[in-house]
Amino acid sequence: MSDLDAAIQRTREEVAKLHAELTRYGLVIWTGGNISGRVPGAELFVIKPSGVSYDELAADNMILCDLDGNVIAGTPGSERSPSSDTAAHAYVYRNMPHVGGVVHTHSTYATAWAARGEAIPCVITGMADEFGGEIPVGPFAIIGDDSIGRGIVATLDGHRSRAVLMQNHGVFTIGKDAKDAVKAAVMCEDVARTIHISRQLGDPLPIPQESIDALFDRYQNVYGQKPQGELQ
Amino acid sequence: MSDLDAAIQRTREEVAKLHAELTRYGLVIWTGGNISGRVPGAELFVIKPSGVSYDELAADNMILCDLDGNVIAGTPGSERSPSSDTAAHAYVYRNMPHVGGVVHTHSTYATAWAARGEAIPCVITGMADEFGGEIPVGPFAIIGDDSIGRGIVATLDGHRSRAVLMQNHGVFTIGKDAKDAVKAAVMCEDVARTIHISRQLGDPLPIPQESIDALFDRYQNVYGQKPQGELQ
Amino acid sequence: MSDLDAAIQRTREEVAKLHAELTRYGLVIWTGGNISGRVPGAELFVIKPSGVSYDELAADNMILCDLDGNVIAGTPGSERSPSSDTAAHAYVYRNMPHVGGVVHTHSTYATAWAARGEAIPCVITGMADEFGGEIPVGPFAIIGDDSIGRGIVATLDGHRSRAVLMQNHGVFTIGKDAKDAVKAAVMCEDVARTIHISRQLGDPLPIPQESIDALFDRYQNVYGQKPQGELQ
Amino acid sequence: MSDLDAAIQRTREEVAKLHAELTRYGLVIWTGGNISGRVPGAELFVIKPSGVSYDELAADNMILCDLDGNVIAGTPGSERSPSSDTAAHAYVYRNMPHVGGVVHTHSTYATAWAARGEAIPCVITGMADEFGGEIPVGPFAIIGDDSIGRGIVATLDGHRSRAVLMQNHGVFTIGKDAKDAVKAAVMCEDVARTIHISRQLGDPLPIPQESIDALFDRYQNVYGQKPQGELQ
Repeated sequence: MSDLDAAIQRTREEVAKLHAELTRYGLVIWTGGNISGRVPGAELFVIKPSGVSYDELAADNMILCDLDGNVIAGTPGSERSPSSDTAAHAYVYRNMPHVGGVVHTHSTYATAWAARGEAIPCVITGMADEFGGEIPVGPFAIIGDDSIGRGIVATLDGHRSRAVLMQNHGVFTIGKDAKDAVKAAVMCEDVARTIHISRQLGDPLPIPQESIDALFDRYQNVYGQKPQGELQ
Repeated sequence: MSDLDAAIQRTREEVAKLHAELTRYGLVIWTGGNISGRVPGAELFVIKPSGVSYDELAADNMILCDLDGNVIAGTPGSERSPSSDTAAHAYVYRNMPHVGGVVHTHSTYATAWAARGEAIPCVITGMADEFGGEIPVGPFAIIGDDSIGRGIVATLDGHRSRAVLMQNHGVFTIGKDAKDAVKAAVMCEDVARTIHISRQLGDPLPIPQESIDALFDRYQNVYGQKPQGELQ
Repeated sequence: MSDLDAAIQRTREEVAKLHAELTRYGLVIWTGGNISGRVPGAELFVIKPSGVSYDELAADNMILCDLDGNVIAGTPGSERSPSSDTAAHAYVYRNMPHVGGVVHTHSTYATAWAARGEAIPCVITGMADEFGGEIPVGPFAIIGDDSIGRGIVATLDGHRSRAVLMQNHGVFTIGKDAKDAVKAAVMCEDVARTIHISRQLGDPLPIPQESIDALFDRYQNVYGQKPQGELQ
Repeated sequence: MSDLDAAIQRTREEVAKLHAELTRYGLVIWTGGNISGRVPGAELFVIKPSGVSYDELAADNMILCDLDGNVIAGTPGSERSPSSDTAAHAYVYRNMPHVGGVVHTHSTYATAWAARGEAIPCVITGMADEFGGEIPVGPFAIIGDDSIGRGIVATLDGHRSRAVLMQNHGVFTIGKDAKDAVKAAVMCEDVARTIHISRQLGDPLPIPQESIDALFDRYQNVYGQKPQGELQ
């Protein structure tokens, strides 16, 4: 097996396995939601097929695409259609070279903020660690062309947050690899829920900007000797 | 085994197995809720028995009924009573020939909207995809005659939505087959919950009608090459 | 084995096994909550031991008590203390001879109503079926004498409801046997949750009293040929 | 094996195993949260490693530290970093000699109260039993020096509560051993949730101070013949 084939196979296995985290944390229902991962060192990414039950996802039915979102013919899984969000994932990989993983869900609390078009304010220290400030809102965009991908990139490019709430839609997260993007999706729903609940009975106390900066900086740097997706 | 017997057996197996989706997604408790499926090519449907634990449901204790809701004597399971909602299911099958599956639950958030007699507004794109607009409210109706069935049909006939909130009661969903109706029940509770939570802290942003139409149309047509219950 | 010994053993097995329903439906945490069942034909009941993990409950560590709540020495489990709520259970069995099972939990939504001292209004048909009207509130009572038992009996005697919200405390349910009381506990939390959520965004529509009466009557009588705990 | 080695091994096993209670009750996500336990009779404690999945925690990857939070070199797990909250745990052990276990989580409802900087009022009897009054709020403190530990000790020293809500952060609990601290974490989230929900629809009724005192006293003393972590 060539190095490229080995990298593709490892990415297939990782992306397939990570989907279990979406069901474990209740971020998805039925066949909704999707994860993709860039193949290291190649202009390729691996993504969930469309309409396959979470119980049946496996390395061999993940779908290999180029960075325009075209399925690579003749590869395992290529007889199926990739996720209907493939164009958005591809747009992100083409335009954000440091991104190695993308996740999309309609997780309940994040989508509730998205339906109001309201950013999640950074009022808990774990959110400062992970997102470095608020989780922003991206534009209303219809599926089917590049408009979702453009909205994600326009909102997240240069932003500390690895999560964006797409208005009236759901959440997209990015990461240095697929696991990091999944962690961002899990953390995003957690802070969306906690801060929603906090606000139901009053106004959460703000965290001073310099404390947010210190927390984010420490989390990115002091812990820098380890893979970021593994902290705590 | 005749073709009819084989179709009955397949429907029994599918209907029995689908009940696990109701417990997986927390839509039912105790012995509540029920799923039925029309036997393709026959004037028959298969429905859950009354008062049997979800742990014990199996193809052989599903109950075969004619379209008036009468149990077919001498068939497996016929020694038990069918679901107390059988008359409502039968009414739907008699009056909506394109319907192949019916599901009833008291799922929490859908029933909360139903208790206020309030339709769920279409403010998230996934709801536009799946339901094509609001999920409507049907009349207050007492169990025991055709009034529930009539209310379901009067509300859903000609409506894009496959789900109806029966006032002060719970939710009924229909589909082209039992799986499709189960998907509608799962999605209905999901949007009922997400939009409830969104509205707790303000007003969700509306989606323009033309965008709702475009999303619904695309979901029904562009994806038309695949079984509808399998999308995403 | 005598008939009495056999009845005791069956009750031990049933009571032990039913505790799994409390964890399945999330009604209890840690070692909280308890179920008891009257031994048919005897002045005895079986109850959960104090402070044993739900993972370890078994027929042999259930505790046999007389109707004053005294542990029957020399029987399996008698080396342990029975539930700290044993006096309340005993009081119910002494004063409500038709009661064959008692359940106590601090389930979240029922306890939230209890903390406000507010009865749960009957605004969903499934609640009319099961409880025949509102779920009432009992008095504030301190553990350690008969005051909890007296409060339960004073509130439920002659009431249609099999559940009572003890003010600032939690919920007690009764039934013709332990399974029926467990069903009442599961249904009580379900309606407490659904109606709470409904009221968060407005006022649920009332159900006319004559419809509540018709639903309750039908559920008790039309379905009377079957064990009540088995309906739906 | 020396007595000390045996005590260390038992503590490793207990602390590793108790982490499953945090996931069972949904108090933690991803690799967040941590439990530590003091080694009886030694100036040592055992704590969760940083960034290891809950699925992989085992006695051998728990980390042994001295009371300044330094990892004991050459012991199992010492090649990894301990939890990033180790300094806070160590501060508690140094300054509260009766404490044998410490737990930290960002559990949803407790953190929601913490984000508002609001103590949880004691309005349910189970909370009076367990915490003897309100659950207090500790100061806003940044990770990385002793400020979190100082805040915990300053708030809980002399307080009946074994739980403190650290402002904008999460919850820390203490106990006579690790299991007792885990029980406090589980109960804290439960009362945080129940009282939050109760307050959503009105004001919970207060419990008279003398009743709170009586409940707490009884729970600590009447039940004193048993390990406190085992009650109910």
